[in-house]
Amino acid sequence: MTRAGAWVVTIGDELLRGEIVDSNKSFLSERLLQLELETARHVSVPDDAAAIEEVLRDASRRARVVLVSGGLGPTRDDITTEVAAKTFGRSLVRDPRALAEIQAFFAQVGREMAPNNAKQADFPEGADVLANPLGTAPGFMLEAEGALLFFMPGVPRELYRMLDHEVLPRIQARLGGGGVVRSALLRTFGMGESNLDHMLADLVRGDPDAQLGFRTQFPDNLVRVVVRAREAVAAEAKLAALVGQVRARIGDLVIAEGEEGLEQVVGRLLVERGRTLALAESCSGGLIASRLTDVPGSSRYLLAGLVTYSNASKVRELGVPRELIEQHGAVSEPVARAMAEGVRRASGADLGVATTGVAGPDGGSAEKPVGTLWLALADAEGTVCYRYQLMNERWRNKQMTSELALDWVRRRLLGLPITDRTFPRLRGDAGGRG
Amino acid sequence: MTRAGAWVVTIGDELLRGEIVDSNKSFLSERLLQLELETARHVSVPDDAAAIEEVLRDASRRARVVLVSGGLGPTRDDITTEVAAKTFGRSLVRDPRALAEIQAFFAQVGREMAPNNAKQADFPEGADVLANPLGTAPGFMLEAEGALLFFMPGVPRELYRMLDHEVLPRIQARLGGGGVVRSALLRTFGMGESNLDHMLADLVRGDPDAQLGFRTQFPDNLVRVVVRAREAVAAEAKLAALVGQVRARIGDLVIAEGEEGLEQVVGRLLVERGRTLALAESCSGGLIASRLTDVPGSSRYLLAGLVTYSNASKVRELGVPRELIEQHGAVSEPVARAMAEGVRRASGADLGVATTGVAGPDGGSAEKPVGTLWLALADAEGTVCYRYQLMNERWRNKQMTSELALDWVRRRLLGLPITDRTFPRLRGDAGGRG
Repeated sequence: MTRAGAWVVTIGDELLRGEIVDSNKSFLSERLLQLELETARHVSVPDDAAAIEEVLRDASRRARVVLVSGGLGPTRDDITTEVAAKTFGRSLVRDPRALAEIQAFFAQVGREMAPNNAKQADFPEGADVLANPLGTAPGFMLEAEGALLFFMPGVPRELYRMLDHEVLPRIQARLGGGGVVRSALLRTFGMGESNLDHMLADLVRGDPDAQLGFRTQFPDNLVRVVVRAREAVAAEAKLAALVGQVRARIGDLVIAEGEEGLEQVVGRLLVERGRTLALAESCSGGLIASRLTDVPGSSRYLLAGLVTYSNASKVRELGVPRELIEQHGAVSEPVARAMAEGVRRASGADLGVATTGVAGPDGGSAEKPVGTLWLALADAEGTVCYRYQLMNERWRNKQMTSELALDWVRRRLLGLPITDRTFPRLRGDAGGRG
Repeated sequence: MTRAGAWVVTIGDELLRGEIVDSNKSFLSERLLQLELETARHVSVPDDAAAIEEVLRDASRRARVVLVSGGLGPTRDDITTEVAAKTFGRSLVRDPRALAEIQAFFAQVGREMAPNNAKQADFPEGADVLANPLGTAPGFMLEAEGALLFFMPGVPRELYRMLDHEVLPRIQARLGGGGVVRSALLRTFGMGESNLDHMLADLVRGDPDAQLGFRTQFPDNLVRVVVRAREAVAAEAKLAALVGQVRARIGDLVIAEGEEGLEQVVGRLLVERGRTLALAESCSGGLIASRLTDVPGSSRYLLAGLVTYSNASKVRELGVPRELIEQHGAVSEPVARAMAEGVRRASGADLGVATTGVAGPDGGSAEKPVGTLWLALADAEGTVCYRYQLMNERWRNKQMTSELALDWVRRRLLGLPITDRTFPRLRGDAGGRG
């Protein structure tokens, strides 16, 4: 039997009880494909020594690369490391450097290390330890039965980082035929996947060592740029050049490089520029404020967030003239403008942002159907206000509204244009008009 | 080797390429648990005859029940049925009734049946056909190697329906001793999983036909009540009685039956009782407002939500006396009370709720460590205010704070007590004190 490219193994009782949807497997397989490694099998087993041993034995004999996630924690249920040692006839060895890192992690978050956390510094003899700066469980690489096995934590953000920073480079070094792969992730907002593909595809056409991948993470789209070269220096130069070409075409749609979300980006920009923000949210219902306050330190720049769901609170808290609402309705350009200007004035913030719209599923009319959104941004230069027509259900409309609003703030802080043409093809579900 | 309860097998290239997250497996395993069948393994293989044959052979020899999903479509890639026939030495037989149903399905949706759809009426000899009113691919049951194998489509809604209507009753009839199973799901908040277990376990002790299952869905805990009886009427009566006993013990912790969240429950109670609500959120940062406005129609009862992240906005928008903040700090009982009373007064709402705390990771002190939360609720009867000490990271502290606040509103509307003893053992990470 020829060896398969890869097997992906996830471990945990909660998976087999159906308590959580295991999205790690699809993530791992997608990343492996970038190295041209196809996954032949996904297997999940409970925290059971015999089951783990069996699947590790099978996988190590049948695949070139085995990615394992889960069971590296400090509790009694977490037995992956000791079962791996037993399966491949290795003893467990405590790694002093890993122990110091776990201790440092606890010190950093201001908690005391429990004694059983020390077991997370134990690894099978001969293992190569994989750093985990985001958590207490380091991973490890083992060569056994002719396979490369990687053991990683099950916590998604720890797993994602370890895969990109520790695992893929090692796979590349061992199996990549001497070449070096480098990749970058660009988070974009404002254009659909197929349009992005259409805009960018020719940049890599005919080059077997360059690749663009597209993936939706509503309401954003992620563009992964992957290049290959003989040497690291050349790969990095090639990556920088290709990322530069991508940015030259869709630069103002790129929110961030890496996994950062728009709330982090906007927060950082506000701090850097010493600007403050206030929100008057109607149809977004507090979601913009909640996203911004997910970021530590947001009290420095978020001066106020008002959820003015009722007309009375628009009048009372924002000083929107009652006649304006009576004449134009709460979902209208004059009211959106008055809300943004009102919250800016009341709070003394540099920027005021307002949303008013029909979130659905009820409350729509022929003139203002469900999904109608008026967005306004007021600052010292004046007020910008445009209408969008969203087409999703309530929850997605709120998400899209919050992303649009935060992107307006980003654009304003970066000096990028905000016009009704800014989002010409917002995945077909929002087209600006003034 | 003794047989496992169940294996779950999903088939499709798209799974192994990581193009979609396979949520079918967790769904299937969760449902099997209701019949007391534990899943021992999840396996996914591509649309490849050898791989499918191997996993079907393994699974049928090692599990009592094998649930297979995917590969029943009309295309060339869909080979599950013919591989199943080959694996178990059966010929393929066209089923005239299934063919008629497929033709009827196309007629109903006004489309012409393509010739290759006819292959979806082919089944291994001896198979029991499973109806699929939502799509063109019927499923089938096969007995082989001592196992019951069920083959289902991969499209989630078709799969879900087929499982509930066709598969579980057959498993029940074969393995369940002929009885009928009924279950209910209770969503609880305020007590940890192990304490719930401790409080309730004796209700089903010694009764092989009654079972309680516990599962955390942070910050809630779900209690699944499962009973079995000879006849449907008896099963329903038994279920109602057991649910009644559970409620008698932990009634005020039960937020809802079914999948409803606290924002829906609170919204419904506010409508039913004709009451209105206003929020002054500091450490919860708008999350309570955002959750409430996820519910359609929330503008009827949510009069205002203020995210008063800065001290200035606490003073300006809520009328909190500046001296109070200077004297006690923003995270303090007097300020929490003043915020709740201030937002109630300003908005004219029946209930005013306020949160102020240290969300983390920075900003803690010895006296007010990260996770300190003051929660206050003001209404015509006065103001309740207690302190909690949360122990999670920022995101989970926000979630927990919003759940506590909404639960206080629920309790107030239902006339249930709110005291510092309300949550004596909040999963060990929050203990009220006045």
